[in-house]
Amino acid sequence: MTEFIPTGTHFVELPSPFPMKRGGALHGARIAYETWGTLDATRGNAILIVTGLSPDAHAASHAGNPDPGWWEAMLGPGKPIDTDRWFVVCVNSLGSCKGSSGPASIDPATGTPWRLRFPELSIEDVADAAAHVVRTLGIERLACVIGNSMGGMTALALLARHPGIARSHVNISGAARALPFSIAIRSLQREAIRLDPDWNNGDYDDLRYPESGMRMARKLGVITYRSALEWDGRFGRVRLDSDRRDDEDPFGLEFEVESYLEGHARRFVRRFDPNCYLYLSRSMDWFDIGEGCHGSTDDGLAAIRVEKALAIGVHTDILFPLQQQEQIADGLRAGGADASFLPLESPQGHDAFLVDIARFGPAIAGFLDSL
Amino acid sequence: MTEFIPTGTHFVELPSPFPMKRGGALHGARIAYETWGTLDATRGNAILIVTGLSPDAHAASHAGNPDPGWWEAMLGPGKPIDTDRWFVVCVNSLGSCKGSSGPASIDPATGTPWRLRFPELSIEDVADAAAHVVRTLGIERLACVIGNSMGGMTALALLARHPGIARSHVNISGAARALPFSIAIRSLQREAIRLDPDWNNGDYDDLRYPESGMRMARKLGVITYRSALEWDGRFGRVRLDSDRRDDEDPFGLEFEVESYLEGHARRFVRRFDPNCYLYLSRSMDWFDIGEGCHGSTDDGLAAIRVEKALAIGVHTDILFPLQQQEQIADGLRAGGADASFLPLESPQGHDAFLVDIARFGPAIAGFLDSL
Repeated sequence: MTEFIPTGTHFVELPSPFPMKRGGALHGARIAYETWGTLDATRGNAILIVTGLSPDAHAASHAGNPDPGWWEAMLGPGKPIDTDRWFVVCVNSLGSCKGSSGPASIDPATGTPWRLRFPELSIEDVADAAAHVVRTLGIERLACVIGNSMGGMTALALLARHPGIARSHVNISGAARALPFSIAIRSLQREAIRLDPDWNNGDYDDLRYPESGMRMARKLGVITYRSALEWDGRFGRVRLDSDRRDDEDPFGLEFEVESYLEGHARRFVRRFDPNCYLYLSRSMDWFDIGEGCHGSTDDGLAAIRVEKALAIGVHTDILFPLQQQEQIADGLRAGGADASFLPLESPQGHDAFLVDIARFGPAIAGFLDSL
Repeated sequence: MTEFIPTGTHFVELPSPFPMKRGGALHGARIAYETWGTLDATRGNAILIVTGLSPDAHAASHAGNPDPGWWEAMLGPGKPIDTDRWFVVCVNSLGSCKGSSGPASIDPATGTPWRLRFPELSIEDVADAAAHVVRTLGIERLACVIGNSMGGMTALALLARHPGIARSHVNISGAARALPFSIAIRSLQREAIRLDPDWNNGDYDDLRYPESGMRMARKLGVITYRSALEWDGRFGRVRLDSDRRDDEDPFGLEFEVESYLEGHARRFVRRFDPNCYLYLSRSMDWFDIGEGCHGSTDDGLAAIRVEKALAIGVHTDILFPLQQQEQIADGLRAGGADASFLPLESPQGHDAFLVDIARFGPAIAGFLDSL
């Protein structure tokens, strides 16, 4: 039940009550955010970044926190998202554990962590909370909202529920609805956590912690975030040196790829709250921009009003496949946007936007330059 | 520790000792097999089928067992593998639990199940055991060896280690070596089983059985055996009816795709021995036809002598991707075979050969007709 809040993080209080889409309301909730650059006099140069499942608001280093952020190569002075020109806001999602209110944070009404008493979380709630941060900062209309992965869902919900909030939109490896393959993967990740006896229906602590469930969930995540193609070139069939192997364990780690997964998992399991993981994971399964008044997903997209949009994806993404970004571009175009679809040849799969700056950087910079 | 032996199964005793590639030897081991059709006077019409990880030798119904087999639509009189013409043998893999010796069967030396005392199993051992069945049946030279999935690996090992054993070869959704993505998936499946406290280092029984570990492993298997494309058409975002949902469980089954996985898992977990699963799964990770004397995988394929070959795969296979079947065809051709590569447009992913008989049937029938 630990929250992991980067230094230099700012907070915005959400209105009390803050109604949740699936029922219930939050009182005394807050959203963590960080900013880069300077808001100009017309307040017309603001960009909002909404993130994937696990990142915090620390997208890049700044004076208040010199640690590299999760999108360090993309964001800063002279970088593709150029903070000499743009005032950039990145929010930590509602429901996360990186400073924003979620299952790991304290419910002011009880003084104890919310855990599973946190109300059901939807992508729409994450979007509404981000919209509140934007308004609180005095921004009437964003120049652009950029969403990666789950953030691509959040951005679409934001545009749909807060008409006029952004002039333009960049959707990166995102989706307008969850597909059954991705639902199946996430359902299995959640099952791994829930099957861990130390999950204990959400009542764990640092001593009794669902470490093996989180490890399984994270490994499955990493497998689906990357691609077979990349791993073949990177790991092939290379074995671990004998001094890195446990010969006592008949089914222990043997291949480099197994060690890579283990390392990723170990770095993650104690740095992300398991209940928050469950809530955010499920919010993605529930998401369909066409749900409710619109009918189809395409209709939901076409109801969005934005001037200009870019949907980017990669051929090797198995979790949010390329057709989903094409659907976003087509749908926004049907709604009147000047919308482009840009498939990239990145070998790195779903997470390519984090590492393949050579391809994603120029694509994003080119779009922002055109605004 | 139950074996699951179809009625009508035959057995061949393996030589004692039966040396295992990675060390150790079996004594008193046996292989289960079934046959269809009649061996002709020249013994020239025999086809061997080697299987994927989980199937038994009951590929199709016959007089001794009228139950439908796992390849019922493919095998029988007038079917693509036409038992009016061919004498077909299907073997249960060494290391499995469907009648052949493996971790779940009794070690004659101790009178107790082998469990983890079974020697390390390699694909080459599975191939050697299948070769012994062929020889015991008086077959000098198979007309064809057909291998699906893991069986595609077994067939290549058989051809490499027993030169001249087959005139031709059909490799279906197989591979000449394990790739890191597939190793990662299988490693995670094994970890799920091993993390289950009821696995108990392989010492479980029917009362204390690693059910949740096997369920996780099977679900992950089914996810990777199928394809996102197929599931989108089949399940979409359809929810379970409220009477099939457990509203008490905040993270319980909600979508049809989750229920589908649950059903698959429930049917499997008590019908396949967990230790056998671990052994067979790992044998695939270890497989590389180029290992040992040959150097590269391509060299290993080119060292195989077979007159004619067909490697079939599907675009939607993420576990044994299409490039692996192309590599097999190219490699066998480099070794002098008349080898073709046939990519199919099946939406069903790795397991398409089990269900997409409309595409696989004519492909296999056409090849066999040309012999």
